[in-house]
Amino acid sequence: MPADLWPDPTALGLVTDLYQITMMAGYAANAMADKPAVFELFVRRLPKNRSYLVFAGLEQALRDLLRLGFSDEQVSYIRGLPAFRHVPDAWFKQLRDFQFTGDVWAMPEGTIFFGGETLLRVEAPLAQAQLAETFLLSSLAYPTLVASKALRCVQTAGSRPLFDFGARRGHGPQAGFLCARASYLAGFAGTSHVEAARRLEIPAIGTMAHSWIQAFPNELEAFEAYARVFPDSTTLLVDTYDTLQGVRHAATIPQAHAIRLDSGDLGPLAQASRTILDEAGRSEMTIVASGDLDEWKIRDLIATGAPIDAFGVGTELITSRDAPALSMVYKLVAVDGQGRIKLAPGKKTYPGAKQVWRRLDSVGRFAGDQVTAAYETADGIPLLQQVIAQGHLVGDLPDLQSIRTYTLAQGRALPENFKGLDAGPAYPVSYSQALEEEAIRVGLTTG
Amino acid sequence: MPADLWPDPTALGLVTDLYQITMMAGYAANAMADKPAVFELFVRRLPKNRSYLVFAGLEQALRDLLRLGFSDEQVSYIRGLPAFRHVPDAWFKQLRDFQFTGDVWAMPEGTIFFGGETLLRVEAPLAQAQLAETFLLSSLAYPTLVASKALRCVQTAGSRPLFDFGARRGHGPQAGFLCARASYLAGFAGTSHVEAARRLEIPAIGTMAHSWIQAFPNELEAFEAYARVFPDSTTLLVDTYDTLQGVRHAATIPQAHAIRLDSGDLGPLAQASRTILDEAGRSEMTIVASGDLDEWKIRDLIATGAPIDAFGVGTELITSRDAPALSMVYKLVAVDGQGRIKLAPGKKTYPGAKQVWRRLDSVGRFAGDQVTAAYETADGIPLLQQVIAQGHLVGDLPDLQSIRTYTLAQGRALPENFKGLDAGPAYPVSYSQALEEEAIRVGLTTG
Repeated sequence: MPADLWPDPTALGLVTDLYQITMMAGYAANAMADKPAVFELFVRRLPKNRSYLVFAGLEQALRDLLRLGFSDEQVSYIRGLPAFRHVPDAWFKQLRDFQFTGDVWAMPEGTIFFGGETLLRVEAPLAQAQLAETFLLSSLAYPTLVASKALRCVQTAGSRPLFDFGARRGHGPQAGFLCARASYLAGFAGTSHVEAARRLEIPAIGTMAHSWIQAFPNELEAFEAYARVFPDSTTLLVDTYDTLQGVRHAATIPQAHAIRLDSGDLGPLAQASRTILDEAGRSEMTIVASGDLDEWKIRDLIATGAPIDAFGVGTELITSRDAPALSMVYKLVAVDGQGRIKLAPGKKTYPGAKQVWRRLDSVGRFAGDQVTAAYETADGIPLLQQVIAQGHLVGDLPDLQSIRTYTLAQGRALPENFKGLDAGPAYPVSYSQALEEEAIRVGLTTG
Repeated sequence: MPADLWPDPTALGLVTDLYQITMMAGYAANAMADKPAVFELFVRRLPKNRSYLVFAGLEQALRDLLRLGFSDEQVSYIRGLPAFRHVPDAWFKQLRDFQFTGDVWAMPEGTIFFGGETLLRVEAPLAQAQLAETFLLSSLAYPTLVASKALRCVQTAGSRPLFDFGARRGHGPQAGFLCARASYLAGFAGTSHVEAARRLEIPAIGTMAHSWIQAFPNELEAFEAYARVFPDSTTLLVDTYDTLQGVRHAATIPQAHAIRLDSGDLGPLAQASRTILDEAGRSEMTIVASGDLDEWKIRDLIATGAPIDAFGVGTELITSRDAPALSMVYKLVAVDGQGRIKLAPGKKTYPGAKQVWRRLDSVGRFAGDQVTAAYETADGIPLLQQVIAQGHLVGDLPDLQSIRTYTLAQGRALPENFKGLDAGPAYPVSYSQALEEEAIRVGLTTG
């Protein structure tokens, strides 16, 4: 059978664009591979419908950065590519011995951030910092998309719990893991993804599919059979045939704790279901809704008073459907101590290592950010912290529960006018005078 | 450090929704786990902007289905979940010994298909077939999205080669592998994803990033340095500072084969670049364009006569941005020889095992499909073929080159009126009279 496509976490060096490898060889050939370089990762512009983003995926990205390397087979493959035939043998040996030995600064996972703000800074020998580009982008952008979408749902749902039901709709099986973690850290209550729940030690959620109902001679028998096996956690899926008839069936099951609505017009169905359950003396039973839900549908259901107690969010969450990609980039900002910029239309960058400062108002809410040169100080809290020094983690990374607590606090500290679901006012982000002057200075001597 | 989120291909059983596991235990408790069941996988409706889809991801899905299993740690985890405390010990032993022993029929990878058509059918003991649901959906839907988007690009670009540049924009690092394969099988010429190219034995494509240019004192030195190391494959990225000045610099590099434009208004820039190159006597140099390209932008560039020789497609391809999810479902259609259906609004299904027949016109083009019961015969070619029998592959699966050849032939056999980039007429798909009658018969006795 041909190639297996599961990534090998012990040989992630080639999980990248070819040009990173050609540039590494090219830097070596030009005696530049070990020049000190600074790269910064940021999102150019927020997607439409986003007035903030939540930084996520850092833990896995750092773990993988520290083990980034190449197997013998991978090095042999590169050596065999026609383009590399003029590259000296010694370089391939270096590639086999590759290890990341640089420094990394980053915003803590769960930090709310805005367009143009440095999220992560790599200071490392040029070839090492270069290799990290594709890997860091593919590791950080997606969890950030999901965490951002998830926090929007959480802020909309208020006290009603949300569950990640996305596993089957992810862009490949790995996405399910990443989505479970990113949504949990942004306040979701649990996930249906069992292996993610197991590894992350977070709640695993789930009961039955339509196939369970269909496998029995009729719906009532299916409900009864389920309740016998799982008397403590009986949520009954009621929409396989006739939804309200399903609710009546569910109301007869003593062990039932909840019903799940997964199709149809959820608001009216929830109202009718609530009435049926209450009239059957089952006021204690709750109603879970799912089925193509997103933050706007949740908002509308709540606004119309639909008696829904919890929401399952799947496709819209795991694909971040309304914004499935970020303009996240990783740009060289200095080499050998000299600032570097890019002047391409719409893609201007600022030179040099940076820090991001967040001012808080008198009640602890975000009042504006300033991006400065790393050597400057400014009002507020410096958001970038060193997480890797000379190829080793600086202290322990926070655990997932701590990240979740921090993310939810970030959500509360965001002023109300930036919490709207549709594009709202832009949060104020300014650049220091030193950065603006440096950009002009470097720009005049570049090209 | 906390949990590592790379999937373990040897223990994929829990890479699923929790309810698959609860249902497996429930079926066992009700002496139904071994009842013969038939599940079918299909896409309910084509996404907007799609008049066809390309089935992809089958090879990896079958490989993984045959090794689907549970580690000791995973079984212990399930045993420890509160919901499972009434489940007898013997069942956990069975879970540890899980192996897929059923039969699978599927359309060949690369087949063009339409809404409502069975793509894959699992006939297996009920519990086994149930477990496969989440896994099959998360393995097949995403490659199908990418292959479909890719074939649209290929049909638009005609003879101009297309390259997958998506790696950094995927939903996690695994997506890059899946995208590279799915786009290649639909006719892309290669990928920038090195590890995917290595494993799949397909062309790896790439040259330099803006950081290469920025790392040197000026653009011309950067170009010269690159050409010295890679004289045989010198494509120069010209838009780091002033694009047309970059083209002039590139024209002075004897080893340069091509330039790459990655920003700005690509049509006029390509025209101006072509003029500069030609006037410099470099008519042999080609122009590669990239930067947020999709099938519509490629169409418009070609329509306006932009002299672009090849396209790199990244974000739009790997996220299938205009359609990032499919309504792909996996539904129980029979158990114990009895047809099963679902009646939920907008989610009606037909009972029983099915076949899909494709009629061809006199010149070999698709003339209409009919879905029938599996025991029926109809005009045309039966698209579902048995690929697994009693838990073993039936013969060898086709290699990637064969799949690619088949997919491109499928694309040529699709009538022109279904090739439009925007929603066009619906391709004719009918259901046999036997299926319609059976649906009514089962419907009358269901609920």
